[in-house]
Amino acid sequence: MSAHDPLERARELTEAAIGGDRRALARLLTAVENRTPVAEAALRTLYPMAGRAHLVGITGPPGAGKSTLVAALIAEVRAKGRPVGVVAVDPSSPITGGALLGDRVRMQSYASDRDVFIRSMAARGHAGGLASTSAAAAAVLDACGFDLVLLETVGTGQSEVEVAAAADTTVVLEAPEMGDEVQAIKAGLLEVADIVVVNKGDRPGAQRTASQLRAMLVAVARVGTSDRGHHGAAVPSEIDVHDAAGPQAASSPPSDRPRPKQPEVLVTTATTGEGIAELLASLDRHRAAGRGGGASAARLARAEAQVWAILGDRTRAELHAADRRDGTLAVLQAVADHELDPFTAVDRLLTSLRG
Amino acid sequence: MSAHDPLERARELTEAAIGGDRRALARLLTAVENRTPVAEAALRTLYPMAGRAHLVGITGPPGAGKSTLVAALIAEVRAKGRPVGVVAVDPSSPITGGALLGDRVRMQSYASDRDVFIRSMAARGHAGGLASTSAAAAAVLDACGFDLVLLETVGTGQSEVEVAAAADTTVVLEAPEMGDEVQAIKAGLLEVADIVVVNKGDRPGAQRTASQLRAMLVAVARVGTSDRGHHGAAVPSEIDVHDAAGPQAASSPPSDRPRPKQPEVLVTTATTGEGIAELLASLDRHRAAGRGGGASAARLARAEAQVWAILGDRTRAELHAADRRDGTLAVLQAVADHELDPFTAVDRLLTSLRG
Repeated sequence: MSAHDPLERARELTEAAIGGDRRALARLLTAVENRTPVAEAALRTLYPMAGRAHLVGITGPPGAGKSTLVAALIAEVRAKGRPVGVVAVDPSSPITGGALLGDRVRMQSYASDRDVFIRSMAARGHAGGLASTSAAAAAVLDACGFDLVLLETVGTGQSEVEVAAAADTTVVLEAPEMGDEVQAIKAGLLEVADIVVVNKGDRPGAQRTASQLRAMLVAVARVGTSDRGHHGAAVPSEIDVHDAAGPQAASSPPSDRPRPKQPEVLVTTATTGEGIAELLASLDRHRAAGRGGGASAARLARAEAQVWAILGDRTRAELHAADRRDGTLAVLQAVADHELDPFTAVDRLLTSLRG
Repeated sequence: MSAHDPLERARELTEAAIGGDRRALARLLTAVENRTPVAEAALRTLYPMAGRAHLVGITGPPGAGKSTLVAALIAEVRAKGRPVGVVAVDPSSPITGGALLGDRVRMQSYASDRDVFIRSMAARGHAGGLASTSAAAAAVLDACGFDLVLLETVGTGQSEVEVAAAADTTVVLEAPEMGDEVQAIKAGLLEVADIVVVNKGDRPGAQRTASQLRAMLVAVARVGTSDRGHHGAAVPSEIDVHDAAGPQAASSPPSDRPRPKQPEVLVTTATTGEGIAELLASLDRHRAAGRGGGASAARLARAEAQVWAILGDRTRAELHAADRRDGTLAVLQAVADHELDPFTAVDRLLTSLRG
């Protein structure tokens, strides 16, 4: 391949990937991850071909067994002869990435299966990149015929939760009987869940945890309908000891998509496969039921994430173009030195862009 | 107070906050968190007054004891008569927020101490907001005389790690002998650390964990100097089973500030206060040593985070202004429906803005 021209390279890779060439697909996803001109050109072609796949977000705290559940789900989906793509957003390292060795070894068993495609993405780059990059990667897999795309993220960071919540169906995983800190994490995660899975179901307390979660979900649903638009409804977020005013009205919450009904709570044991068939059936039901409402809001959220990220990328690129670069760096340095406030800095940069 | 005009309200709150009114300070921080016009007006005044405080990021995996360490550090700083501000970024809930009840109760003991100011911020809103909002909150505390500002985040999400890494000094907390998953998290976190703290030093294995970390840091330092600019240098991030090409050259890593020397590894027991005086001494040494180099890169990173976030906010606000709103929503919906790719969508939105 000659392929010095990004447009030509994108055309070659796109045609090959659509035709079933998995190495071309892998290279396209690398381009997407690195936000190269090849990725832009390829997505302009592939994006309109996508939109048919069921995008399933899988999130939960570290140690709940997400990767093992994903592996079990892949096995179940493959047993039914369906193709499956996986995008694992790995925030464990801002720089070197780093999926777990065990997962990598396990996934090698699919190396010869053309209908399984697993991609680990480091969540690097500027903020906003995560939601945008994972949505773009899902669109590429979708356009290449993967009818089910799993998006695995760890559910402790805001960005990672947003990525999962922007899926058509969001699965939140919990392990039985975790400590206090994880209990606090649960409250937030539960609000984005379409399906809640208590994994490690062979441990004592799994059924009790499931019952507790069902009770919490009733409470969350009540808060959700009575007090949207305020934060701190269930748990005040202020620990500010000087402000007696209590929780303030907040800007719009990141996810206010309608929840047609309370999330189902399932118990699985991913290591043995127990409950996995029921999970897949639940996913398929949610897909069939969710063509409107929540799913459509999630699609809009994914679209917005991509559009705003690209808009930001392009604006920054223009500000760093040869003729503006020195001026931009001087403005940023003046903010770093506290000689200029960041709002006045933005006034100046916008004048430079539009002047 | 009349204060219907944001400029007037900002002027009142700013003057009061600078004068030592903690409730006015709390209200300013609420405005910053909600990105209101009052916040913008106040920051235009306060930002140039800031830049003197030592901003210390404290991050680590859930369960490492970050909040307890912060409480112990507050006690130590107060014993020396120094003021301290704390911004705790709480990503445990994307919607309701939710600091741990135990921390809140503990912090109530400072309710009558004017030289301690603790603020918990929910990490909500669009991506990029986290780094920008926490930097702005730190600037407000700085301008109001808090010479030391601690920024506590959980170190599992990319955004949260970036927030901590944009501090003048970054402390990464670890607990002794954690499982495999946390080991993987460590590798990434260590790369942003200026000081590594093994907390829960009274547990067996703490000293061994510290030794292991020192060994890992030698390895990280070697990777850092020999192979910057590639990701996957220490651990390949690809688990892509179809692409034999191996790790790809990556876009620039999020943090490539120079590391003048290897991070110090300390052992603390935050619950008893053991090692906390040594930690404060280490922070003060790092502050004194770090006026140039890494600290200046961190300041630039904080400035950029704020400028890009404000630029994004302003652009989105313009695109949602009355005369453009319908057109913008139509473009976003077309992307959601896969009728339009997101790059062409951005072309159209920019034409609308600049046409």
